[in-house]
Formats: sequence, structure tokens, C-alpha cells
Amino acid sequence: MALHVLHFLHQGRAQWGVVADGSITPIPGEFESTAAFIEANPVDRLRILDAPSIRESDVQWLSPVTANQQFICQGANYRQHMIESGLDPDVKKFNMIFTKAPSCIVPANSDVVKPKEVRFLDYEIELGLVLKRNITSRETVTDENLHEYIAGAVLVNDYSARDIQIPQMQFYKGKSYRTFGPVGPYLCLLEQQDIPKLKELVLTLTVNGAVRQNDTTAGLVYGPAETLTELSGVHDLYIGDLLATGTPSGCALTIPTPEKQRAAAQLPDAEKWRMFLKMQEERPQYLQVGDVVEAFIASDDRSINLGVQHNVVVEEAA
Amino acid sequence: MALHVLHFLHQGRAQWGVVADGSITPIPGEFESTAAFIEANPVDRLRILDAPSIRESDVQWLSPVTANQQFICQGANYRQHMIESGLDPDVKKFNMIFTKAPSCIVPANSDVVKPKEVRFLDYEIELGLVLKRNITSRETVTDENLHEYIAGAVLVNDYSARDIQIPQMQFYKGKSYRTFGPVGPYLCLLEQQDIPKLKELVLTLTVNGAVRQNDTTAGLVYGPAETLTELSGVHDLYIGDLLATGTPSGCALTIPTPEKQRAAAQLPDAEKWRMFLKMQEERPQYLQVGDVVEAFIASDDRSINLGVQHNVVVEEAA
Repeated sequence: MALHVLHFLHQGRAQWGVVADGSITPIPGEFESTAAFIEANPVDRLRILDAPSIRESDVQWLSPVTANQQFICQGANYRQHMIESGLDPDVKKFNMIFTKAPSCIVPANSDVVKPKEVRFLDYEIELGLVLKRNITSRETVTDENLHEYIAGAVLVNDYSARDIQIPQMQFYKGKSYRTFGPVGPYLCLLEQQDIPKLKELVLTLTVNGAVRQNDTTAGLVYGPAETLTELSGVHDLYIGDLLATGTPSGCALTIPTPEKQRAAAQLPDAEKWRMFLKMQEERPQYLQVGDVVEAFIASDDRSINLGVQHNVVVEEAA
Repeated sequence: MALHVLHFLHQGRAQWGVVADGSITPIPGEFESTAAFIEANPVDRLRILDAPSIRESDVQWLSPVTANQQFICQGANYRQHMIESGLDPDVKKFNMIFTKAPSCIVPANSDVVKPKEVRFLDYEIELGLVLKRNITSRETVTDENLHEYIAGAVLVNDYSARDIQIPQMQFYKGKSYRTFGPVGPYLCLLEQQDIPKLKELVLTLTVNGAVRQNDTTAGLVYGPAETLTELSGVHDLYIGDLLATGTPSGCALTIPTPEKQRAAAQLPDAEKWRMFLKMQEERPQYLQVGDVVEAFIASDDRSINLGVQHNVVVEEAA
């Protein structure tokens, strides 16, 4: 059965605990990293303290993925988001991989800082998967053995500065700003029988209460098994690392269709990017200081419930 | 005065030492990471063991940058390489940043494995800079205070699978394959008066003895100070992290001029990429199994000498 774990600060001490109905049962031990926690606490042998539970409202959330882990992301991995990103889903036949700097990771209820040089701040709700083991050579991961590779699931918001990310071509900088990666609140540890539910999770994101993104993970183009198989042939992955699987449609970003891009390609680059920024200016969906972003991911039956993220967009301190 | 340090394995033990004229004087202590080594050994207070020196020929090189550090790269940062990469240097007005997975780091004399799915394997000699301190908020780095941020310099070869890197848009995957990041052999620790020499280093790369790249760091477009200033406003950097500053011209990669790209942009994507691969096929410069790549970086007066990398291209094991 899936178990929901919270990484939290209570009375000045970082702890991990099993959370249910607003109540936390601490897990014994000190685990400084996600790797150390997962290593010591396999879901089927997880021990909880015979101690009074702690009310969730009395603790401060920490990210269940610590900033020493790799933060690997899939881009354009839902069909409709590909289209809004200006890609033709029938032509893009590769699994786009990029990273975010791990220092962008913050707890799920953090403020998101809009950097002073950024005009077009966007949101991206994503299912994140946390690795159960190191992968240091080519391996064949399948839906059948996926439970040996995936320890659990988390909610990720891949905040993105579109005016940096898109014109500068490499996504890394525009997606790595401090606070651009809220993770959590819960790490849902999965057993083998829970794995099929990863394809049935509902993702919902609201801004100031209005729904902007609402889709299910059934729409993922490159699934976790084939993605891990491919990545295993490229570089090493470590226990506790985070794979964010891409966002569904509904972002503020708008990019012309491939046909219109072909027309725009005739323009000098500077003119092309001026038009791109102009198009974004017409999108009121971009986040402004004071906006409240809420995101949640769960299965219909709530047996997997990654919790609710709550972020307020704030100005960068002078 | 610049001091050249080697990270090496001798009689089964990883050590660090000062190297000169083929002879190593060990530095006392155990340092598992580049961060730990730099933290404990400021260049102006470096102690060496009062012990017999070790012949460099008796040790096995290790990378002076350990795989726990961030591996951050600048793209298209020499004017002529921008042109061969299909960018107009008068239009590209941003500092392109991407990363390589740190697990691609290998010692300077490692074999480079050509992955079975990769056809177009390319080389990129680069000056690498190793950080002296953590940077966790916006800072203003200048040529005058750069010595407070840069501990030293290393030679990096940013091997790249062009058939993955370019058509898949994000550079990360095509540049992160295991063995694609030889670093070293030497970490040259710099004092304040050595810093100006970072702009006068000569980079030379040969394949099977023929010179392919030969340029000086005077041609860097975005220098270390402005790059660190910008990155400090994005994400955290840590002591021991590696910043690879981009490669000069002379790679195997060829991309049409922006004008020709505008014409090709009228074609369907699949056709455009077919043409791209066809162009690469006509470049005999791409690395083949058995090729020997040698690279070295030094100042004219040899007061900074990052040593010689020697890599043989080998097939991926079945």
C-alpha cells in the first residue's frame, strides 16, 4: 500500500514521518538526504516510532527531495503541451531531457521569487518520480520492474522564466532560478501494486483559484520505464534523484504553430524574438507578484495523494 | 605563483600532490571531493609533505574535479565557433548556459566511449574554472575580485554527440554520456597575480596528431567575471564546482549560416534534420573508433600549464 511521507522541521529538528489525516507519525533516525532516507526505509519494511504523533499544522514542511540530488526533467511530454510549445507531436520523436539546478528546490508552500530581470514567469505542474537505486550502466526498465527503480512520487512545479528559457535556447538557466522548484509536500512511497496508478493520476493547477491546468498522467508521451531505460544508457542516476515527467497543457506560454514559425523564420533573429515577446505580453496568464498558485496531484481513489502546493509570487528583494 | 596540483591514485590510495617536472610532492590529508581539497588548501597556505616525492609515471591520474560537483558549461562563447554553430555573433546577445551530468567526468587519459547509438562524436577543448567558494546570492564579480571566486583552472574536453545534441534541442543529453568529460590532468591553483593570464592561455587540440583547434582565451565572449555575476543571480554555486567556458572553432560540427537556415526552415522538420545529418556525414573530422585526441592548454611562459589530455576513442562494449 502506498505510504505518504513528510520531511519536516519540528522544534528545530529535521525529521521524516508518515502522514495521514493531518497527523504525522515520526520515522526513527536522522536522514540528511533523500538518498539516505530511501536507503534506510524500504516501503515494505518501514518502521514508525512508538511515539505520540505530531499535528501536521505544528510543523514546517521541508522538500522531500534534498538539494544534493539530481533534478532531471522531461520537456514537451504531453501532446497538447507540445502543441502550445510550438512543436508538432507527430514530428518530435525524441525524449527531450534537461535539468534544473538543484538549488531551485524549495518546500511546497514556499514563496516563488520573480527575479527582477524576468517578465514572463510561468507555472508547470508535473509528476515527479524519486529513484530507488543507483543506475550506473545500461538497464532495461519495464512497467513490470519499474517498482525496483522508483521509490515514490512527488508533486513538482517547474516554474519557468519564458523570456530567458525560450530565446536563450537552453532551458537550464530560465528554469533554475532560486525558488523555481517547489517539491512535495508528500513523498508517496510506492509498492509494486501501486505502480499502475502512476498512469492514472490527476494533475490540477489553479492561479488565484481559477483552474489553469487539469489533466491526467495517462497523457504522458514518454513513460517512466522507457525514459529510465534511455537515461541509463547516457549517464549515472542515483538513489533519491528526481525525474520530473513534464507538464500538461494550460501554461501561459504561447508559441506559434510550426507553420507560422516557418514564416517567422524568414525574419532576422532579433525581430523574431521581439515578436515572441510581444505575443507573450498579450497573455494575462503570466504570473504577477501577489498571485497565488495552488497545485495538487492524486489518484481518483486518493490512495495516492501527493498533497497541495501553495505558492505566492513575490518580488525579488532589492 | 600558480601551483599545479594532481589528484592521483598511488598504491591503491587516492591522494593530492603538487606536481612539477614529472615529480609529485604529496599534500597531507584525505580529501574526498574537490570541495574538501580546496577548502583545506588555500593556494597561499598550501603545505606539502616532508616526504619523498613520487614519480608521476608511477601513479594513475584521477580527475581533479570530483563527480559530486556541478558541471556547468557556456555554449557558443568564441566568435568563430558561434559561426560554425550556425549563430550570428552580432545577434546572439546572451550567455548560453547548459550542464553536463557530472558522471561524465573521467581522468584526462581515459578512453572515450562512442555510444552505439551515436554517429557524430565531436571534441571541444575548453578552459575550465574551479570555484573557490560558495555563491548563494547575487554577487558582483569583477576582474579585480575574480581571485576570490576562482580557485584554479583545468583542461576540459566537452565531448558531444552532435546527432543527439542538435536535433533534440537541449544540449544536456548529447553531452552527458559517460566518459564525455575528461578533466585535468592538472588543477592549476591561482593566486591573484595569476588571474590576468586566464585571458592569455593557448588551447590546442589534435586528432591523430593533426591540429584541429588552436586559439587563445583572449577570444572568450562572456568572461568569467560577468558569467559568475549573472549565474549568482540565478542559482547556487559551490566550492569545487566546474565552469567550462566554451570551445574555440575547429570542431567537426558544421551548421549552415543563419541565411541558409532561414531557407531550410521552410522544409518540414524531418526533412530539415535529414539534411543536417547529411551535412555531418560529409565531415571526415568526426571521431571514429581508434582515433587519438590530444589536448593541452598553457600560457606562453608555461607558468600556467594544465597538462596534456590523451583520449582514445573506443567502441561501447556489447
